[in-house]
Amino acid sequence: MSDLFVFVNHDLVPASEASLLVSDLAIQRGYGIFDFLKTIDHTPIFPDEHLERFLHSARQLRLDAGRTKEELLGCIRLLMEKNKLPHSGIKLTLTGGYSPDGYALIKPNFVITQSPLQFPLTGLFEKGLRLVSYPHQRQMPDTKTIDYLMAIWLQPYIRERNADDVLYHQGGLISECPRSNFFIVTNEDEVVTPFEGILKGVIRGKVLKVAGRQFKTAERPVTLEEAWNAKEAFITSTTKHVVPVLGLDGRIIGDGAPGKVTRWISEGLGNLVKGLVQRPYV
Amino acid sequence: MSDLFVFVNHDLVPASEASLLVSDLAIQRGYGIFDFLKTIDHTPIFPDEHLERFLHSARQLRLDAGRTKEELLGCIRLLMEKNKLPHSGIKLTLTGGYSPDGYALIKPNFVITQSPLQFPLTGLFEKGLRLVSYPHQRQMPDTKTIDYLMAIWLQPYIRERNADDVLYHQGGLISECPRSNFFIVTNEDEVVTPFEGILKGVIRGKVLKVAGRQFKTAERPVTLEEAWNAKEAFITSTTKHVVPVLGLDGRIIGDGAPGKVTRWISEGLGNLVKGLVQRPYV
Repeated sequence: MSDLFVFVNHDLVPASEASLLVSDLAIQRGYGIFDFLKTIDHTPIFPDEHLERFLHSARQLRLDAGRTKEELLGCIRLLMEKNKLPHSGIKLTLTGGYSPDGYALIKPNFVITQSPLQFPLTGLFEKGLRLVSYPHQRQMPDTKTIDYLMAIWLQPYIRERNADDVLYHQGGLISECPRSNFFIVTNEDEVVTPFEGILKGVIRGKVLKVAGRQFKTAERPVTLEEAWNAKEAFITSTTKHVVPVLGLDGRIIGDGAPGKVTRWISEGLGNLVKGLVQRPYV
Repeated sequence: MSDLFVFVNHDLVPASEASLLVSDLAIQRGYGIFDFLKTIDHTPIFPDEHLERFLHSARQLRLDAGRTKEELLGCIRLLMEKNKLPHSGIKLTLTGGYSPDGYALIKPNFVITQSPLQFPLTGLFEKGLRLVSYPHQRQMPDTKTIDYLMAIWLQPYIRERNADDVLYHQGGLISECPRSNFFIVTNEDEVVTPFEGILKGVIRGKVLKVAGRQFKTAERPVTLEEAWNAKEAFITSTTKHVVPVLGLDGRIIGDGAPGKVTRWISEGLGNLVKGLVQRPYV
């Protein structure tokens, strides 16, 4: 990692020197936003959607990004040319800046990191995920803030229950996983995902479109009980695209194997992404 | 500020060089804890209580502080000797560390900053504070995390309502201000403060003891309605000690001037603190 470069404000610097002063409001007050996109074969995937959401998150937190979408993409390209990583995750972060009193917002700091990312994640689709539910509602859910306090804190809770990730709910109403959106497939093959209290993932949006070509789709409240009894369930994320959820709270979902609808949607999304990449990524 | 020194892990470095790599989980995921204490005339005020709470917060977030209370105090003294600031605020921060995957906890980073702090804050007691209520419950309220996302975000909301700070409530039940605890004095001169969903402030604890010498005290739920109609109200904090709350949500509390009970408690606390300082601080 240490030979990779990081974009900090206006400069490309080696990761081992990419730092922020401790007066930054991210360190002082956990105040910042970010977005995360993927490159496959040197091609940024859905950059428009990610950069628009980045700018939306910045506005929501009253942080001046100081760059247009096109200028942000220019910064990303500079970093990509320097690092020469074909398959990668690119994270853009905007923080509250070096606040003199540790409280008032000031000129933000802007950071872009790039890290190697394998895709597709070999075997993950067939293996699927086991989730465990937990009562929590993220603050400012429609803004991609750096607040992952609960997500990091819950790691041992997840491991102790032999689960791969946590699924947040509030009073039995499901919202999302910390880094992915959640879908169920009903017995009538309707593809359903929560609408409120969530971050609207880029892949979530693409999946709703892809699924809509073949299946009825709905954005509406989903209860834990519905999820436990769903025919299929899956999560969507930029890193993982579509992964079947085969267990929830120790219960097997459907027949415990990746379902037909999930597989159809995963392939449809895969074809959509393939079409964006200059060379097929297999 | 730039000539002041900062303690970072094991070293004293100038503030202009006191930095953390961007891979730190405070920047990546808002994951960290802190505590804040005051020095008056080169004397740390209530260091035991603050350092015990710092270690408690660290344990709650599964961060290994790597130092005993006595060793932490040793680090503070090193910094104090270097900076030679008699009256100051000292902030200790422990972050999630340089996580290779930006998610898993790792060896924490430890930072101590010192900044000049005037005390007492001239005229603040007589001027008092105006608060505006807002529905919010901090996550992990009994842990002093760096999560001040809502507090920073609400600054314009507070200013637009001509208030000095926000008072969090949930369904009309008051918890706390972002950086202070909240008390009311009832018509029967009972001194009451919320007990649940709050950070138990060091000064809050001292005030309950001081007030108990003269008045009935209670830690119990307090509604907004009670606060609007209270005889007196005040906040407590390490920086401000005791400050009358003279308005809440645009309503005048009591007769709109600092009340007798608040003044008695403020003086009692002042005497307690004076007793800790080698030379009287006036």
